[in-house]
Parts: sequence; C-alpha cells; structure tokens
Amino acid sequence: MVEKTMDKIVALAKSRGFVYPGSEIYGGLANTWDYGNLGVELKNNVKRAWWQKFVQESPYNVGVDCAILMNPQTWVASGHLGGFSDPLMDCKECHERFRADKMIEDFAHANGLDIGDSIDGWSHEQMEAYIKEHEVPCPTCGKHNFTEIREFNLMFKTFQGVTEDAKSVVYLRPETAQGIFVNFKNVQRTSRKKIPFGICQVGKSFRNEITPGNFTFRTREFEQMELEFFCEPGTDLEWFNYWKKFCLNWLETLGLKDDEVRYRDHSQEELSHYSNATTDIEYLFPFGWGELWGVADRTNYDLTQHQNVSKQDMSYFDDEKKEKYIPYVIEPSLGADRMVLAFLCSAYDEEELEGGDVRTVLHFHPALAPVKIGILPLSKKLNEGAEKVYALLSKKYNCEFDDRGNIGKRYRRQDEIGTPFCVTYDFDSEEDGAVTVRDRDTMEQERVRIEDLEAYFAEKFDW
Amino acid sequence: MVEKTMDKIVALAKSRGFVYPGSEIYGGLANTWDYGNLGVELKNNVKRAWWQKFVQESPYNVGVDCAILMNPQTWVASGHLGGFSDPLMDCKECHERFRADKMIEDFAHANGLDIGDSIDGWSHEQMEAYIKEHEVPCPTCGKHNFTEIREFNLMFKTFQGVTEDAKSVVYLRPETAQGIFVNFKNVQRTSRKKIPFGICQVGKSFRNEITPGNFTFRTREFEQMELEFFCEPGTDLEWFNYWKKFCLNWLETLGLKDDEVRYRDHSQEELSHYSNATTDIEYLFPFGWGELWGVADRTNYDLTQHQNVSKQDMSYFDDEKKEKYIPYVIEPSLGADRMVLAFLCSAYDEEELEGGDVRTVLHFHPALAPVKIGILPLSKKLNEGAEKVYALLSKKYNCEFDDRGNIGKRYRRQDEIGTPFCVTYDFDSEEDGAVTVRDRDTMEQERVRIEDLEAYFAEKFDW
Repeated sequence: MVEKTMDKIVALAKSRGFVYPGSEIYGGLANTWDYGNLGVELKNNVKRAWWQKFVQESPYNVGVDCAILMNPQTWVASGHLGGFSDPLMDCKECHERFRADKMIEDFAHANGLDIGDSIDGWSHEQMEAYIKEHEVPCPTCGKHNFTEIREFNLMFKTFQGVTEDAKSVVYLRPETAQGIFVNFKNVQRTSRKKIPFGICQVGKSFRNEITPGNFTFRTREFEQMELEFFCEPGTDLEWFNYWKKFCLNWLETLGLKDDEVRYRDHSQEELSHYSNATTDIEYLFPFGWGELWGVADRTNYDLTQHQNVSKQDMSYFDDEKKEKYIPYVIEPSLGADRMVLAFLCSAYDEEELEGGDVRTVLHFHPALAPVKIGILPLSKKLNEGAEKVYALLSKKYNCEFDDRGNIGKRYRRQDEIGTPFCVTYDFDSEEDGAVTVRDRDTMEQERVRIEDLEAYFAEKFDW
Repeated sequence: MVEKTMDKIVALAKSRGFVYPGSEIYGGLANTWDYGNLGVELKNNVKRAWWQKFVQESPYNVGVDCAILMNPQTWVASGHLGGFSDPLMDCKECHERFRADKMIEDFAHANGLDIGDSIDGWSHEQMEAYIKEHEVPCPTCGKHNFTEIREFNLMFKTFQGVTEDAKSVVYLRPETAQGIFVNFKNVQRTSRKKIPFGICQVGKSFRNEITPGNFTFRTREFEQMELEFFCEPGTDLEWFNYWKKFCLNWLETLGLKDDEVRYRDHSQEELSHYSNATTDIEYLFPFGWGELWGVADRTNYDLTQHQNVSKQDMSYFDDEKKEKYIPYVIEPSLGADRMVLAFLCSAYDEEELEGGDVRTVLHFHPALAPVKIGILPLSKKLNEGAEKVYALLSKKYNCEFDDRGNIGKRYRRQDEIGTPFCVTYDFDSEEDGAVTVRDRDTMEQERVRIEDLEAYFAEKFDW
C-alpha cells in the first residue's frame, strides 16, 4: 500500500487547484488558505451533501443563515466573553509567547513524564508550579525565565460604527451555534415545527488560535456545519445516540473507511459540567487522529443561559402533553475545512498499473468529485461534436472540456483530480451518435449513445 | 394592481421565516439580519442559480473561495487602505457624527438647491465652504457648529495573533474581488485556462457604513457574487457588452420584469479614472431604483497595482500570438442580499380571487422557490402514504410536509411562501396510486400517478 503523506497531499492540492496559500503573492498570511478552482467545487459538494442529508431529506431539520457579527450580549450568555481563552506566558529572555498548557504537554511527552489524562482542568497555579518544578525550558531559546500566566481571549475583536471605543466593540463569532440558539423561538414559530426538531447552519467562524497548523486542519478562519437538535428532557441520550450513528453513517456512505474513522467518547472528567455525554468522531489523518465531528448532549444549558441574560422566555410548550419546558439540545458540530481535508486524504492513492506505470488517483465519491465528467474529443477536429455533449451535460454536472494532449495523458489528469467518468468523443461518434464512457476506478470503458447519456449519468450520480 | 410596500414585505419576511432581525433577543445589532428557515433556502437557491449559469454551464469561468482575512498589503495595492473612506464631521453641540457629503445632498434636496450631477468629486474644502455658506444645520439638533471633516476608513479592523499592535492588524475584506486578483496566476496555472476566461467567487464582505438601511439592501456585513473576467486589451469593450447582456438575461430568465430593471450607464465624469465603461443594473424597489449589479471595465488597473506592490509578475503569455500582456478585466459584481430582496419584492403579489377573497402569493421562479413542493395528506389518516411521497420527492427537492388545517388554508399558506406545486394525497390515492398536483400560479389541478412524479417534476423544474 502506498504511503500517504501530508507533503504529497499538500503538493497535489497546490498544483491541481484544490488549495493555495492565502494572499500568496504577498508572502501569505499566517495559515490562511484559499480554495482554488477544484477546491471550491469539492468544498461546495461537501456542504451540499451535508445539507441534503441533514436538512433537505430530513423530516426533522430546517436551516438558518445568521450574521457573523452578533450583539456582544450573545457572548456573555454563551460564556465566550468570560471563559473562551488560552493561558499564555511570555519568555522574558526571547519575548516569544506560548500556551502554558501546550508547553507542559509537549515537555511531558518529550521526556516521557506522566501528566494524567489531560491538563484541561489545571489552574494557573498548578501550571506555573509544574513549569517551575521541572524547569521547563523555553521552546525557542531554551532558557527558563517566564512571566506569569495571563488569559488571552480567542475571539477576534472589531469595531462597528464610527468610533473605536468600548461601546462599539463587536466580535467575529467563534461558532455558528449561538446564531441558532438566539433564533430558537423565531425558527420554531415560523417553521411551525414541533419538538423534536433541529436547526442547521453552515458558515464561517473565527478563533484567534495561537497555534494553527496542519494545513487546513486548524485555521483561524474556518467554516462550520452545525446542527442544534432540540428535544424533550429525558429523551436526550436516545437522540444523542441517534445523531452519533447518523453522522458516522453519513461519513461512511461518502466513502470513508472503517479503519479511518472512530468514536472517541469523552470520559466523565473530560465532560463539560453541563454535558450529559460527548463523543468525537475522529479521522486518521497522515499526522494522526484528529477530530472531525463533536457530538454533544448539551442539556438545556445554552437556552437557559440565553434566557437568563436576555430575559426572554426560551421555553417550549408541548401541545399534546400540556407541558412547558426548556428543550435539551444535541449538537453535532462539524468543521467543513477539515472534512474536505479528510475526504482528500481518504481519496488519495497511487496505483501500479500493468506495465509498471503508476497513476495518482483521487477516489472521490461521485457526489463529492469536483469535476463529474471529463469531455474529451479524440482529435481537435471533433471539437464541435464534443462541445455539444459538453453543453448537454454541463446543464446537470460540473464538466471539464479537455482537448489537449494524447488521450492516455488526459485520462491520467482526470484520475489525478478525481473525475469519476470521462466521455470520449471519437470519429465513430459522428457516425453512430455514441461515445465511450470510461470509469475512473475500474478503468473500464463502455459505449453509450449520446441520447442515453442523461439517464445513464442520472443513475451513476444518484445518491 | 396591488401596492407593494416595504412594510408588507418586511412583515411577511419576518412572519414566514425569510429574514429576522439579527440578535433579536438582545435588541438586535444595528442593521444585521438573519436568514430564517425559508430565507436560507431562497438565498442558497439564488447563489446556486448564479453559480450554475456563471460557472457550471459557462465554458469560460471557474470558481474560487478565498479567505476573508487577507494580507494587508492587498489593501495597499487595491487602494482600500488609502482611499476607501467617508468624509465625516461631528456636531459640536450634540456630538452626533455625520457624512458631510450626505448631509449636503439631503440639505440641497430638501431646499430645492441645485448641486449639479454629484458631489462625489468635491474636496473637503469645497464641502466645508458649502456648509458654512448655506449654514447647513445639524440633522439632529438643528444647530450649526461642526468640526472639520475627517476621513473615516470603511474597513473593519481586527487583530490576528496574540498582541494588539500595528503589526497584527488585519482587515475584514471589503470586497471578494481582491481574492480573485491575487490568485490570478494560481488559477490560470491550475485550471490551464487560456484568455479569455473568468474567475467567480461567492462570499461575505464587510464595510463599516455609517448609514446602512432599507432592510437588507445595505448592510455592513453582506454577501457578494463576483466575476472577474480576464481578456486581451482591446477586446474589453466587446466583453463588457457581452457580460452586461448576460447579467440582464440572467435576471429576466429568473422572472424579473422589463419595467423593474434598467441599465444606468455611468457618465464620463462619474467613471473611475481607470475604467473604460461602467453600467449599473438597477431594480425598482418599493423605496426606489437601487443598484443590483455593477458591471465595470476596469482595464488592467487591478493586476497592475498588485504587480507593482507585490513585485510578482502578473502578466499572461499568449501562446498563439506570442505576446505577453497584463489582461484587462471586466467585473460584474452582484450583491447576494439585495438580489434576494429584489426577487422577494418582485414575487410579492396580492390577488383577488373569485368570491372576493384575497390571497397573498409569492410568484418565485421554480428554481428560486425555497420550498419546491408541499406534500399535503387530505386527512391525518393518510399520513403514512403521504410520507412515502415525501421520502421519494425530498431526495431531489426541498419539500414541506403539512397535515394541519383544512386543505384550502394549506394551499394559501404554500402560496404565501411561494411553493410552486402542492401534492395532495387523498383517499383515492390509496386505490389508484395517483395524487393531485396543484399549480401555484394557475391554481389548476391535475391528477398524476405517483410513479410518474419524478419525471413530471424533473420537467417542471428544468432550468
């Protein structure tokens, strides 16, 4: 089996137009990335596949699309203004700044020291004491001379309106979830949904991480696909299990394999104080297991917080049971960018062919492939006929027309960008009104009449 | 004919789930808006219809999706750091802040004074002199005692990384266009496109407007759909006319009427110094004509600016002519939010029916309608059969299942949210395997076999 490395995947992503470094002509901007001509199609397909199964086909869920800039009281209620911060300390020698918790973990790991399951719960005093006791050195200059720990809020701050004072401070949302919570009553009223029901949102969020990295896995600007599912208290663990399975199933029907994905249930100590249960669905990236999806039973914590801060009633009246309650919430929260990266990693392969040649191929699920069909005239003399096939199929599918180079090279190129089917228009096509359709994965070819192409592909792309 | 007012449209938008005030439970946040369960579908359909005609079916164009946060040098090159500002002055009496140009225009308009075509070109001195000479009063307190004019940059500023100093300042992009320009060479390389070709992008932009307003027409956070089309110098006016027509045609095929849209060509004085031609496509909103689309021939201004600032070669080598040049650019730039608002206004109608009843109806084009098909069991006893029809059709279309109230009221409700078709599952359906399909616009009904529904709707929704 071929070794998949991040180097190979990043190189392919850049050279084929999946992902470029952001603002590249200006030397970039700290771990920002731009999706190129293929990347935007792949990402849109991922978002569309999520929306299709979580909203369109779901009898339970509807969508919303909320503003990135929200009233700052939102972040008081959600706890982001008070508690969403990293413990940072400066090296007094070289003036670099570090996350204290991260520095301790790295130090303990490098020196084979046991620090227990997690240091998430440690106080500043505990961390400072550990650093002192072990004389943890500065990762940059190696000296041991740090300031005290200070908390650094992860929200991006900006100013709305004409003055830059405290009154005009607003934040870029650090998650899409809160837009859903503040609109819970609005959506329930206008959609006339009864509990249990859910609200979905896709959109950008921003976190001023001190250590972004691993290509598009962790970035300061990122896109989320979140569902907040509202249910009756007491039914929450049942729904938690429902969505946990539903999410994994979605990943598997789109081609992720059993040995690439796993659940990681949070232990009692790791759980937030308000959560009844939390599971991460992780993917085995070339750099190790990484979280794709956080599925959490958040009880009635969020709606209660908003009710307390806004003084607005956030309860639901159950018509049948004649009962009023604040709904419990199950939150499956997925990062779109790391989802795209996982599909890219999973699809990547290098295959040895008969004769010893190697082909690089992206085995994307047809629903995700950025280009669905490559249209290849065997000779430029045949462009006119092939263009008609392009016009026909591009009404339904994102197609690529390629008339450059020999046909074998063109097949390789389409393999490398993950195109599931190529349609070759040849000299016989002019006579028999048929084309050759080649399958990316089997490399088998079959002859299909042009008038049958729409029905042929409708079946192939049915999902 | 019914009078369409913004009041009616805003009220419908709020009550039916198209648009809610942003952060409403916290008293809102200055002219931010959230799209509700129907609004998000409408907006997604608008973006999809644009992408379909401008990218998917276009033999010329490909897409990108760039980061909102860009290297600040981008805004040096684009001119946004230097020149993208409003002239503001404070009233020394009541401490309110105003746009000087807007204040002069309003004053002149209210007093029937002629100030020529536009005061866009006026210097600070000219504006200050006019205000002094005419003793223009403060719009809030009526006194005449202003500070001097100061320029206020419209970009939202934030800080990336761990310190809030000049080095870490970044801006929220004020337009999506620049992400396309900085990636011109990347996309040309990876897509292997030859000139003429274009790059499309959909995404959020931010402008710290001092006077947002007219519902979702002008907001500080907004979404754009921009095309930058690169062509050979000298062919630019030809392509300018091509895209000008293409854009208007897109609007008309989606249902905007002749008397609702118009071109407004910019006069020579109004043109930017680098532009060879600019046209606005305007829509007649209930509050007057407003710009939807700006179509501009921007010559080679943008790529040249980026070449100068970045010192990277932005030229294109024409293989056939053996010539090297910096391409000219045609930019059709459309606001997604005001586009959604225009479709909403255009679709709105109140119709008197036989018998004197009035129905409110949104005559959305089928491609834009948020709910494509309403599935209505005539009685709750028929839910099981009707749910099978829902499961079948929701694979392809966003459907709504409604089993509450009498059938007439349910039709009215679907009319009001613009659902083009309703499928009624009745007692006969159990026997004959057929349903009644009702057309929103003609209100005519026909009987269709369930097994034929997919083909029936495929034709109805073909676009």
